Amino acid sequence: MENLSDTAAGWGERRDSALLTDYYEITMLYGFWKYGRHEQQACFEYFFRSLPPHNGFALSAGLEQFLDFLRHFAFNPSDLAYLGQQGFEPEFLEYLAHFKPDFDLWAVPEGSVVFPNEPLIRVEGPLGFLQLLETILLNSLNYPTLVATKAARVCYAAEGDPVMEFGLRRAQGPDGGLSGARAAIIGGCVGTSNVLAGKLYGAKILGTHAHSWVMSFESETEAFRAYAKAFPNNITLLVDTYDPVNSGIPNAITVFRELRAQGLNPRGSIRLDSGDLAKLSKEAWRLFREAGFENPSIVASNELDEDLIADLKRQGAKINSWGVGTNLITSRDYPALGGVYKLVAIHEAGGWEPRIKISGNITKITDPGRKRIIRYYDHENHPLADLLYLEGEPVQQGRVKAYDRENLQKEITFRADHYTELSQKMAEGGKFTVAPVSLPELQARAQANLTCFPDEYRRLRYPQTYDVFLSPEAARVKHTLLEANGFYRTEAAGKEE
Amino acid sequence: MENLSDTAAGWGERRDSALLTDYYEITMLYGFWKYGRHEQQACFEYFFRSLPPHNGFALSAGLEQFLDFLRHFAFNPSDLAYLGQQGFEPEFLEYLAHFKPDFDLWAVPEGSVVFPNEPLIRVEGPLGFLQLLETILLNSLNYPTLVATKAARVCYAAEGDPVMEFGLRRAQGPDGGLSGARAAIIGGCVGTSNVLAGKLYGAKILGTHAHSWVMSFESETEAFRAYAKAFPNNITLLVDTYDPVNSGIPNAITVFRELRAQGLNPRGSIRLDSGDLAKLSKEAWRLFREAGFENPSIVASNELDEDLIADLKRQGAKINSWGVGTNLITSRDYPALGGVYKLVAIHEAGGWEPRIKISGNITKITDPGRKRIIRYYDHENHPLADLLYLEGEPVQQGRVKAYDRENLQKEITFRADHYTELSQKMAEGGKFTVAPVSLPELQARAQANLTCFPDEYRRLRYPQTYDVFLSPEAARVKHTLLEANGFYRTEAAGKEE
Repeated sequence: MENLSDTAAGWGERRDSALLTDYYEITMLYGFWKYGRHEQQACFEYFFRSLPPHNGFALSAGLEQFLDFLRHFAFNPSDLAYLGQQGFEPEFLEYLAHFKPDFDLWAVPEGSVVFPNEPLIRVEGPLGFLQLLETILLNSLNYPTLVATKAARVCYAAEGDPVMEFGLRRAQGPDGGLSGARAAIIGGCVGTSNVLAGKLYGAKILGTHAHSWVMSFESETEAFRAYAKAFPNNITLLVDTYDPVNSGIPNAITVFRELRAQGLNPRGSIRLDSGDLAKLSKEAWRLFREAGFENPSIVASNELDEDLIADLKRQGAKINSWGVGTNLITSRDYPALGGVYKLVAIHEAGGWEPRIKISGNITKITDPGRKRIIRYYDHENHPLADLLYLEGEPVQQGRVKAYDRENLQKEITFRADHYTELSQKMAEGGKFTVAPVSLPELQARAQANLTCFPDEYRRLRYPQTYDVFLSPEAARVKHTLLEANGFYRTEAAGKEE
Repeated sequence: MENLSDTAAGWGERRDSALLTDYYEITMLYGFWKYGRHEQQACFEYFFRSLPPHNGFALSAGLEQFLDFLRHFAFNPSDLAYLGQQGFEPEFLEYLAHFKPDFDLWAVPEGSVVFPNEPLIRVEGPLGFLQLLETILLNSLNYPTLVATKAARVCYAAEGDPVMEFGLRRAQGPDGGLSGARAAIIGGCVGTSNVLAGKLYGAKILGTHAHSWVMSFESETEAFRAYAKAFPNNITLLVDTYDPVNSGIPNAITVFRELRAQGLNPRGSIRLDSGDLAKLSKEAWRLFREAGFENPSIVASNELDEDLIADLKRQGAKINSWGVGTNLITSRDYPALGGVYKLVAIHEAGGWEPRIKISGNITKITDPGRKRIIRYYDHENHPLADLLYLEGEPVQQGRVKAYDRENLQKEITFRADHYTELSQKMAEGGKFTVAPVSLPELQARAQANLTCFPDEYRRLRYPQTYDVFLSPEAARVKHTLLEANGFYRTEAAGKEE
């Protein structure tokens, strides 16, 4: 397909978006600049703390959109004028105008199976610029990862039937629909109704017709005939505008028979968008088979999610393709992944110093230091556990020692056959060292990564928990910093007053 | 403030987005065009069928973004090239290239209090074009209306305290954050952290600093001093990076005292982002008062929503301003408003013919005909009920007869003091007859509209239900169409076989 993206730059591309950030990122950048600390080398990592409920894994997505933002990062003149109106001094605006992003970046590629507390992105560079990246990074990654994960569940429930993403009209804003559609395809959907996602990302676009098509004609049969006239070789007729069993399905069969009489060979394809999808699909199947259509295509939509699809499957619904809208595009039962971006090290005179964020809530204590993710496998290539290693620490082979993130005294030992490193270096000195990956490739990669995990991690309810441990050195550094910050000697608040 | 929007056109503006639509809108447009039916005059209406749980009202938002899309509607050459790749014939692409939107539009202004089944937008014009509008209209209106409604609840719970929108990092994509921030301000938030929302919509932008600011310095006190150096006259210090009571709050007080010693007059302002917000805020209040800060500003954030704010208020938390992120920007407990866009009439040779969509589910049966919304009030200007009238039907005054939408036999009579019409004509022949309204004006309008409704409609749980009825003529036409479509003579499905 011809590449249209150059001529299409505009809506949907991450351009003109340097100000798409929380104001405090800019006040902090100003503060660092004012204090002469903006060029201090720092290291930040992106991770999320917990999976959506009932999820055994997450599927990473959104990276390319973040990189697209980085590739075109600049404050344009109107951005600077706006910041000037907020009272920032001209020297600071001048500094922003000539801002040259300079950073190294490591990331887990899109379509990877990932888990809580893993540094999916690590960025090193000047403190001021890295701080500025926080909001757009979180915004670019959190939502697509959520939708790709949901899509993987929905496709798993559909047991190989094609699943189509139909959510644009209920998405949270135009871009919810756009990056949501892209993430849904990474997660396994065969296509989307979103035409702009088709144009910008090369996604397959799909669609039938609406009730309004039928209502705009004097009769349902006339409406079906008119649609068949426009698309004689490939139509799916929506049969529930008035009454599917007594009107829609028989009228659709009439029109498909007329197409046959014209020498065409329609499969017989309908969509059901309301009512009892199990019962109606079985009835439709029976009527089409009686009319001589051996293998009709029955598409279902209407409030579908992974649970309802699994249930309809169990009840023997004769549905062979699924259109999933609202519940996928908004991840309705869990609409926000709580990803965070935390400072893990600062480069002081003596070299890299790890930093920790303490919290009364033990799950919110960060893992200090610049980290890599190593995934260990057994000899059948099934993942065993992931370990977070510090940069420069030798990776263990064979017999592996690991430590519990929240209880560092707990040592775990296991034997591994081999390992892979999850994150890759993607930029150095602000220059990208990787090219964008096409959407079909991302989908294939996600599929390969998912099937590598045994079924118990993909169960829709109470899946097996996959372990993420600290390496010996990561555990030692965390312990040292906890001790130095008085973590092991808590006093009840206010008792000393 | 200088208007920056002309130079800023790009990300966030609804340009280059003619393809931001479901594919079936384009296949239907093609079908209508192929059948010579695309110029048929039609009328579509936008409405939603139910409120989010526990809600007594909704607050309309998103209209201006939809109108911005309409004002700039065009297929650009790369859009047409993409559609050509999908197999559409050159004559159709030629037709799209010279597409001149021509329509009349009525809408309920943004910031109106609205209810289920009310036609918030009514569009009349050529069938093909109106069909094409469906997806972008739904996408533009559903999400902002949801967030404006949520924001109104959150602000109601905060009892007049300032509420700030902080959700960009957890929003569903960049535009979720952008149109969400705009809607939150319409709903009553005093400002947003989203800088681009500030630039594009003139929203007030707000922000403090992050934990990473503190962690990047050798000590918390040094970090606070550095921030005070950058913003000596107006800082809010985040005090929970390590330990609020034993470290953060005392260190903040130290720095505010140093500012006093320099002759400045800080109020003493902190933010709490974790822990027990009620307990910590009371402790902070006590410590600041003891240190001679009479009226400290205590900002709270962290997983806030209307219920938690109401609870903290009941427990006497000493919080005087609230930062609300994830739960507002995603409307976490109900992330999608199920708004729909339905054909209600077709202009045939004999004039306007009302159309109905039948469903086994009675709440899904549409109200046929081109409609207006009339709101009746008592002599104290409290709304009594809304009636949906057909276009051209005389509006009743004084003693009003109304009909239940779902049970047309049920006649309701009430006495009204006066009425207003909710929707306004906003475009004629594709030309807009209204100018955009500024965000502060929209916020003020919403506030005025909300306070017009007695408190029982705004209760956070089990609010009073407000009635939307059909006018005598709207009820008569609906009854006639139900009868004509066999609604009153249902046969059990499949029994005749």
